[in-house]
Amino acid sequence: MKQLEKLISQIASRMNAILFKQGFDADLYIQKCIPLDKMNKFYAFYGITSSHPLGFYFRHSNLAGSYFLGKCAVENSILYKSDIRGDELKAQGDIFHHQGSDIVLYDDEVIRIKGSFLIKTLVHNYSHNPENLEEFSILSTVSMHYANIHGSPMDGCFLGPFSTVDLTTLHNCVVGAYAYLQTGELSNKRIEPGQILISNKDLFDFSYRFSSKDLNNYIAFEPGKKPHGIFVDFTENRKKDFQKLFAVVHLKARIKISDCASINRYAVVKGETHVGKNVLVAQRAYLENAWLGDGANAQENCYIINSRLAGNNVTAHGANIIHAQLENKVFVGFNSFLQGSLNCPLTIGKESIIMPHTIIDLKEPLDIPPGHLVWGLIRDRKDVKEHSILLKDFSRVNGKFSRGLMHFKGSGSSFVKAFRDRIEHILEANGAYFDGSKNKGHAQMGRDISFNIIQPYPRGPLEGLYPTIAIHS
Amino acid sequence: MKQLEKLISQIASRMNAILFKQGFDADLYIQKCIPLDKMNKFYAFYGITSSHPLGFYFRHSNLAGSYFLGKCAVENSILYKSDIRGDELKAQGDIFHHQGSDIVLYDDEVIRIKGSFLIKTLVHNYSHNPENLEEFSILSTVSMHYANIHGSPMDGCFLGPFSTVDLTTLHNCVVGAYAYLQTGELSNKRIEPGQILISNKDLFDFSYRFSSKDLNNYIAFEPGKKPHGIFVDFTENRKKDFQKLFAVVHLKARIKISDCASINRYAVVKGETHVGKNVLVAQRAYLENAWLGDGANAQENCYIINSRLAGNNVTAHGANIIHAQLENKVFVGFNSFLQGSLNCPLTIGKESIIMPHTIIDLKEPLDIPPGHLVWGLIRDRKDVKEHSILLKDFSRVNGKFSRGLMHFKGSGSSFVKAFRDRIEHILEANGAYFDGSKNKGHAQMGRDISFNIIQPYPRGPLEGLYPTIAIHS
Repeated sequence: MKQLEKLISQIASRMNAILFKQGFDADLYIQKCIPLDKMNKFYAFYGITSSHPLGFYFRHSNLAGSYFLGKCAVENSILYKSDIRGDELKAQGDIFHHQGSDIVLYDDEVIRIKGSFLIKTLVHNYSHNPENLEEFSILSTVSMHYANIHGSPMDGCFLGPFSTVDLTTLHNCVVGAYAYLQTGELSNKRIEPGQILISNKDLFDFSYRFSSKDLNNYIAFEPGKKPHGIFVDFTENRKKDFQKLFAVVHLKARIKISDCASINRYAVVKGETHVGKNVLVAQRAYLENAWLGDGANAQENCYIINSRLAGNNVTAHGANIIHAQLENKVFVGFNSFLQGSLNCPLTIGKESIIMPHTIIDLKEPLDIPPGHLVWGLIRDRKDVKEHSILLKDFSRVNGKFSRGLMHFKGSGSSFVKAFRDRIEHILEANGAYFDGSKNKGHAQMGRDISFNIIQPYPRGPLEGLYPTIAIHS
Repeated sequence: MKQLEKLISQIASRMNAILFKQGFDADLYIQKCIPLDKMNKFYAFYGITSSHPLGFYFRHSNLAGSYFLGKCAVENSILYKSDIRGDELKAQGDIFHHQGSDIVLYDDEVIRIKGSFLIKTLVHNYSHNPENLEEFSILSTVSMHYANIHGSPMDGCFLGPFSTVDLTTLHNCVVGAYAYLQTGELSNKRIEPGQILISNKDLFDFSYRFSSKDLNNYIAFEPGKKPHGIFVDFTENRKKDFQKLFAVVHLKARIKISDCASINRYAVVKGETHVGKNVLVAQRAYLENAWLGDGANAQENCYIINSRLAGNNVTAHGANIIHAQLENKVFVGFNSFLQGSLNCPLTIGKESIIMPHTIIDLKEPLDIPPGHLVWGLIRDRKDVKEHSILLKDFSRVNGKFSRGLMHFKGSGSSFVKAFRDRIEHILEANGAYFDGSKNKGHAQMGRDISFNIIQPYPRGPLEGLYPTIAIHS
């Protein structure tokens, strides 16, 4: 493991040099938190399809347990059980709209991960950085368990566990656990744990921050220790169900689904589960007694348990839905944690928007009416008042507006419109609107994927490192 | 499958152009014999180890079910369940001895397969062609089920089922079913089915030919049909045991073995099987109630069933041993078929040499005494007299000598010495003489191999073809 240990040190020392100003000590996060012995145990895999341009390049890296789809290059990096899903990368000749301009793509876009350390991190979508549209670059970045890097090129950053950086270019930032950022661009900032920030320069700013006390129950991360809390326990308790999927080369489908839906063969399907038409169930999604109506989707690392989603629902990367009934077109954002129970079920009315990083952890049955925007931490009916608003009412806001710990300024209608447009885009991209010939999306294009399995050197100085591999069509 | 069908046609038409003079019609062998639907069903795999230089390059090819170890490049070819085992390839700087000269290798040797069609073929060892020592090239060659290409570069050849070309460079030859060639070099020749030829220019010539009638029981191959006969039935009946090995990513070892022995994870191990020290069990070997003493080996596609091998035994590629007791250092050559039964067991005394392509198919119990050379077809004690000779007696032959259908001329002692030297070399290469530190061979170096799994495009015009892949250290 000599070379692997050297590589880890190199990544750590570079992170320290970059994040010195932020008082960051990589040793405490990388060297002491990472189970070196596991880096050798899991195979990596990449998808071959006829729907996505093919291009992989792996060099001087460890890729244990990671998943790749679409063009991707990884150099001098460590990826552990990360999902690198490049099925929305831009193609040569595509047109990117930016502040009224149309920019034509020179080449197919590539996800480029160099000198980085990603652990159980999701990378998805495409670069929203107009300065480099052909490359979704994640350079010298360390990202912890279940962080999402979504449409967000970054360099020299540290992302805490369960954090999400969404449509934001970051330079040399430290992002705390469970923070959510959607701000266009940020440099040399330290974002506190549990901070939610959505900012569109001239139009609006939305912010909310979880109290440290509340957040620590769910996800706590102290230097030198592993992340812990309810979020971690929840996934750890279901780890075994995934192991069976990885043990076999080909997996027989557990349930029958329509021709225009797809369940990734690395998703768990348990109990009485139903998957309707135009449904996408992504890799590492977990369905148990889940009823997914037509056009619903279940993205990476999401858990849908004892729940019914009526149709055209978005369950974003890392979102959990337990003992809940969701009416049509309810949106559940990144890493949200909606936990009802048999005695305290959750119902959410149609077209409500559960903001990314919302925690609903019920002590009594709860019914959220249709058309609401919901954020923050909700445990009972009382909490709902401080953490939601009718979208119709919110659209009328113009200027400053606060509710509980949520602060907003700008145009409410622009905020609501931006959200609704995005939800439509997500449904479209995932294939929810496929009519048998037009509007194909991931649900249809993800049906036929061959997974190729790669493993590292089993012994010697290169133990744990993968050989250099270049794959193209 | 459009591109795959085109590739098959291209290979067939080139073969027809090359072998026109031999009256060869590739359509009858390739187009009509090959199950196109299976070309898409099996994954290919290649081994990553720290003991063998790494280098793979696959382009415009189908590799279904094939196994690769050591440096190898495959272009515009179809390989179906072939074993490409490059663990004896020469390395840069190695010295090759040829007719008194020492030749230094410029580069690591690579197996290069281009425009070829190999089905269940074994490729092993290294190029013995002094004109091109850095490349073990198999160009525009079609090779059928269970043929062995051993140390034999070739171009524009057709190899029938269960044929073996051993240490021989071939150009534009047609080799019949179950023929065995070890002749240095051959051009534009047609070798009849069941012809055994061992020729060392100035020193000796050994020849034997199975009668067509006898051979057809074991392996018959008519243009436009699949190969059939006892050999084919034997392997077909045991096919299911292999399927379990391919279904899982990691296989748990069935039996405990010594630190200095190895059982490839793609070998079948059944019943009460014992594997001693310094034993190599290669991929696709089949052991059932097999007792393998120290230093024995079981090579690719061999079957050892209800048998005991005392130690330092060689079971060459494709050799079968059923209901037999083999004393120390008995050698069983390529594709030999030794079939005793509970009532008609076979015993072979120490240091006997069972020539490649020998069939012993017993109607009564048989005991072959020590130190014998054995060839041809043996069914009872009477047959032994016509198909064996004491090695000591054979060493005294000088000039012409015939026994039954076997014809020899030259120096018997040179022939016996060449065989004995080779057996020693094989035992050494396989690690039979490992003493805990020195004389490492495949038994020790094959213990730690990671297998990477690759699959073709699942749909679209490239269906069945593999993406271009380049892998190096």
